[in-house]
Amino acid sequence: MDFDALFNAQLDTLRQEGNYRIFADLERERGNFPRALNHGGSGVRDVTVWCSNDYLCMGQHPKVLQAMHEALDKSGAGAGGTRNISGTNHHHVLLERELAELHGKEAALLFTSGYVSNWATLGTLGARLPNAVILSDALNHSSMIEGIRHARCDKKIWKHNDVEDLRRKLQECPAGSTRIIAFESVYSMDGDIAPIREICDLADEFGAMTYVDEVHAVGMYGPRGGGVAEREGLMDRITLIEGTLGKAFGVMGGYITGSAALVDFVRSFSSGFIFTTALPPALAAGALASIRHLKESRWERARQKQQVAKLRARLDAIGIPHLPNPSHIVPVMVKDPVKCKMISDVLLDDHGVYVQPINYPTVPKGTERLRFTPGPGHSDEDIDHLVGALHALWKHCALARAVA
Amino acid sequence: MDFDALFNAQLDTLRQEGNYRIFADLERERGNFPRALNHGGSGVRDVTVWCSNDYLCMGQHPKVLQAMHEALDKSGAGAGGTRNISGTNHHHVLLERELAELHGKEAALLFTSGYVSNWATLGTLGARLPNAVILSDALNHSSMIEGIRHARCDKKIWKHNDVEDLRRKLQECPAGSTRIIAFESVYSMDGDIAPIREICDLADEFGAMTYVDEVHAVGMYGPRGGGVAEREGLMDRITLIEGTLGKAFGVMGGYITGSAALVDFVRSFSSGFIFTTALPPALAAGALASIRHLKESRWERARQKQQVAKLRARLDAIGIPHLPNPSHIVPVMVKDPVKCKMISDVLLDDHGVYVQPINYPTVPKGTERLRFTPGPGHSDEDIDHLVGALHALWKHCALARAVA
Ligand SMILES: Cc1ncc(COP(=O)(O)O)c(C=O)c1O
Ligand SMILES: Cc1ncc(COP(=O)(O)O)c(C=O)c1O
Repeated sequence: MDFDALFNAQLDTLRQEGNYRIFADLERERGNFPRALNHGGSGVRDVTVWCSNDYLCMGQHPKVLQAMHEALDKSGAGAGGTRNISGTNHHHVLLERELAELHGKEAALLFTSGYVSNWATLGTLGARLPNAVILSDALNHSSMIEGIRHARCDKKIWKHNDVEDLRRKLQECPAGSTRIIAFESVYSMDGDIAPIREICDLADEFGAMTYVDEVHAVGMYGPRGGGVAEREGLMDRITLIEGTLGKAFGVMGGYITGSAALVDFVRSFSSGFIFTTALPPALAAGALASIRHLKESRWERARQKQQVAKLRARLDAIGIPHLPNPSHIVPVMVKDPVKCKMISDVLLDDHGVYVQPINYPTVPKGTERLRFTPGPGHSDEDIDHLVGALHALWKHCALARAVA
Repeated sequence: MDFDALFNAQLDTLRQEGNYRIFADLERERGNFPRALNHGGSGVRDVTVWCSNDYLCMGQHPKVLQAMHEALDKSGAGAGGTRNISGTNHHHVLLERELAELHGKEAALLFTSGYVSNWATLGTLGARLPNAVILSDALNHSSMIEGIRHARCDKKIWKHNDVEDLRRKLQECPAGSTRIIAFESVYSMDGDIAPIREICDLADEFGAMTYVDEVHAVGMYGPRGGGVAEREGLMDRITLIEGTLGKAFGVMGGYITGSAALVDFVRSFSSGFIFTTALPPALAAGALASIRHLKESRWERARQKQQVAKLRARLDAIGIPHLPNPSHIVPVMVKDPVKCKMISDVLLDDHGVYVQPINYPTVPKGTERLRFTPGPGHSDEDIDHLVGALHALWKHCALARAVA
């Protein structure tokens, strides 16, 4: 049987739609973020990365790197086993304590990624709680959606950030069901933020559990980087806070925090937690250093805010449409996969600006965009340079300008 | 609603069955494997780890650690994004090339873990190939089972390592179906090995795809550590070889290798690959160094074999039953979760021997065991010490001795 023909047929469809993905082949330069070497194309070239989710450049922070070097020297490369079978390292234990403390919860549990933490936890809660119904925001991340599918429990999708619709869906749940409201705080592609307080009020009214993904908020929001729920004083009203160590904290890994019983439950029953090699001690040590730093230091958050505001103002000044939102994410809408890729190619080739075109399935078809994530590493000159390049390009391509 | 009561009810059941898990809190000592510090219980204590899946001690190998230190200094802590959005680092590209070469395939694809590589790949193949039927060995790992569930395609379970049953199941598939035979080479809990050649013969006869998980074989079998399929000269007859970077290679991460079209297909369509932060450059660099070393060096494999044979002979000599098998895994069957934990506790407390009791759901109820994984780091004195401790314990507990 010619399997390759089957694969190629579906890949060809992607190509025809303009949705075939080519990865940039980068080498980030520690000490010089957001600069990187681009190995793609002809020869190695310097570029400025404008779409990293290492939002606060913690991936190059001396404290983080020192902790990782030390853990490598002390405990070696990998964990050597699953958490149960020789793979729990003291660094994991310390990091779980720190995460629980960060979110004001009794306990925390590490996963190999934020993806796995969502998938495994929602899958386990939905499958094992009696008469579970998961009420899922319509724009939830793929990892949550897959976890909910995996649970095979009842589910209801409520309109994005729409508490009136959530109320209706809560009312529709049969009496005696265990309701789990699952949503994100910062939605990563549009940059909008959930009405957490209203959701908590509804949860109280209906006796529902609240599950919030703060992946694009931890480290960046709240006085200690505890996320949007911390900023709004709502952490104690959330049943379960999920986060990542791979974005603002600059390393890799995922986690949940909640009551001791909840965490022990997921620890004990979740296949995606149990049957996999634990995080390397050095990653846990790096993440711990990063979290501790961002608990104390507000410089990174302040500088990120500043540079985000500058970029927005400059885009407004030259009439480049971008989605308004209250977060650190600046989406410039192109609404066509082929044009989006074309613009991104020109930015890279002619201007040394790297911003990946965002297409389906990451965003719905017809909402293709460039997604800029200014951070503390971007200088005012970097912003000048980017805005100059976009300006030239917008003029040249005669793309529609619009008021945001 | 009192959610904690729901969680605690199910945890209590685990406790009553003796299946509640307590993780050892270890600190491995680089340069001194398999020694570790145990932070659990009262005060920190030295222990010898006898159940690590860092099978060849590559987690402390100077080449691996040097590569990781260098990558940290060069590129920082995390990848900073998903593979598509700024997260592909040149170290990933080099590692994927090396993995393809190791297995004699056109291409390779990295995942955050072996678990995710199985889950995401089987999920994608089963869901997207026309009329897919996945034929799954009855003892396949949880990550494969979850991937197959996720695919929601037809599936058939064949009796463990039984090619006659596999033939029957292949015959039962409707005409025109895309048959995918999924199995492992080394089964990690019993240590037995699949009849790969016979499975490939059947695959040819029925035009089926072969998917083999070599997680417990890569690095350890074959002249270059390519796994059992390499050792038996069968790599070119396997459609897809899956492996981990977290066991014999001593780091963390998972991968698949196969034709360029197959790999591009999974890269392009698999949610578990797309929507997650990429592996840190330092992990990729460490794994690359480890693979390259084990391609050349046969010392680790030879010494592992030697120490495995020694332990088996010594257990035979004192009449401690262990499952016979042709691999590096030495399972001592206890067949009761409470006794298994008790023995493990005594070994730890009285003898400084750490071997985690293996219970449900990792193995079926009634097959609880101690699973020893001797490696190049275990000295003859370590084996003496372990066997002495087991001997004392077996006598003391008057546990049934049996001929293997
Ligand atoms: C909302 C959201 N949740 C979870 C994840 C997964 O986290 P991780 O990258 O740590 O796997 C992502 C992105 O990767 C995300 O955008
Ligand atoms: C057969 C098998 N496949 C896959 C995995 C998962 O690999 P990883 O630990 O890299 O997630 C494991 C164990 O962890 C395993 O035993």
